[in-house]
Amino acid sequence: MRVHALLFDVFGTVVDWRGSVVRAGQRLGRGRPWDIDWGEFADLWRREGYLEPTAQIARGERPWERVDVLHRRKLDELVVRFGLAGLSEAETGDFNQVWRRLDPWPDVVQGLHRLRKRFLVAPLSNGDFALLTNMAKHAGLPWDCIVSTELFKRFKPDPQVYRDAVDLLGLDINATMMVSAHPRDLEGARSAGRRAAYIDRPLEFGPASRPKTTPGSPYEVSAADLADLADKLGA
Amino acid sequence: MRVHALLFDVFGTVVDWRGSVVRAGQRLGRGRPWDIDWGEFADLWRREGYLEPTAQIARGERPWERVDVLHRRKLDELVVRFGLAGLSEAETGDFNQVWRRLDPWPDVVQGLHRLRKRFLVAPLSNGDFALLTNMAKHAGLPWDCIVSTELFKRFKPDPQVYRDAVDLLGLDINATMMVSAHPRDLEGARSAGRRAAYIDRPLEFGPASRPKTTPGSPYEVSAADLADLADKLGA
Repeated sequence: MRVHALLFDVFGTVVDWRGSVVRAGQRLGRGRPWDIDWGEFADLWRREGYLEPTAQIARGERPWERVDVLHRRKLDELVVRFGLAGLSEAETGDFNQVWRRLDPWPDVVQGLHRLRKRFLVAPLSNGDFALLTNMAKHAGLPWDCIVSTELFKRFKPDPQVYRDAVDLLGLDINATMMVSAHPRDLEGARSAGRRAAYIDRPLEFGPASRPKTTPGSPYEVSAADLADLADKLGA
Repeated sequence: MRVHALLFDVFGTVVDWRGSVVRAGQRLGRGRPWDIDWGEFADLWRREGYLEPTAQIARGERPWERVDVLHRRKLDELVVRFGLAGLSEAETGDFNQVWRRLDPWPDVVQGLHRLRKRFLVAPLSNGDFALLTNMAKHAGLPWDCIVSTELFKRFKPDPQVYRDAVDLLGLDINATMMVSAHPRDLEGARSAGRRAAYIDRPLEFGPASRPKTTPGSPYEVSAADLADLADKLGA
């Protein structure tokens, strides 16, 4: 069966969350007497504020919450831990919304424009529906629609999410392909019957990133970026 | 409070469902010995297949179903009633999908491109999520996201739908405006606290359409089309 829709992981695959958070932190710190390692700050915010809680929720160990709420709770902790003194409530709230203003990797906007001529393209992200919608507007991501796991009150890689998304789009499961830089995400999609495309984002975790997958990975497609994906899918 | 998002009714406000169904019927009938009044066919399909059942569901009188299913059930009846002999299952299924291929009114694509520079623009339609997504791709409607009442398993004008949509977008209710050619839709939105813009679509029901509202209607904005709406909202 021909692939009709491409569903994209977003944080890390489409946008450079770490670089964007680092730059936003540096702007926030301008003219303030802080000495912050913003890379470490970004990594902790991502790991403890998002990856760990969403994984716990995906395993059914705690109730579902919006990512905005998870992010904000951890930010309030990190503000204390890193000694970010003197932030107003408005500044903290605005900094939390940096996740709506993440910058895409350089190949993304043009790559999506190519791919959407041949395929239905949509995110399938754990990011909130409003977060993804605002991010698309900020970054100029030409999605055909926004699919957030918020619609299902579950998180990837819960296999049910991949089935729910395909059902919402009215498609056969093997007419869809999950595109992600994260092997765990692709494994979740495959366990639900979806096809999988791996995108290599070697710098997702900054200059000290470790390789995420081995050569010869078992996915239908493995690509260096969205231009390469478009080439390989004939778009 | 400033308006941040415009949510649009779709069938009749954004797309010319009647003209599109009539043209699709005429194409289907080419070379067949039928004598069909496609305007009457379209009106019955719309009224008995969509307006009446969604109104019953909105009032809680019957369980929610997808619009694709409602449309198909009525189409199967109309095929018999109008004597559309010789249609294959594939042709009937494809004809049912005409609702995904409705053509926009002539002002719509350009008007939405103008409005989306200043506002978040999205449908808020009883059409299924997949239907609206495919329609947007077919017609080139530059929505920021797709909001279908399918996400809430309710139908407009149930006031809860307007609140659910605003909550999904993470906005204050009075930062959103409902845009519709249908007074009942706007009344539902206003009863939920939303602002309302009326778009005059005098030919929605064909050449014999009757006026839908009286001059001096009580909405914040009343516009002839989306270009006029963009002018009036300063977009």
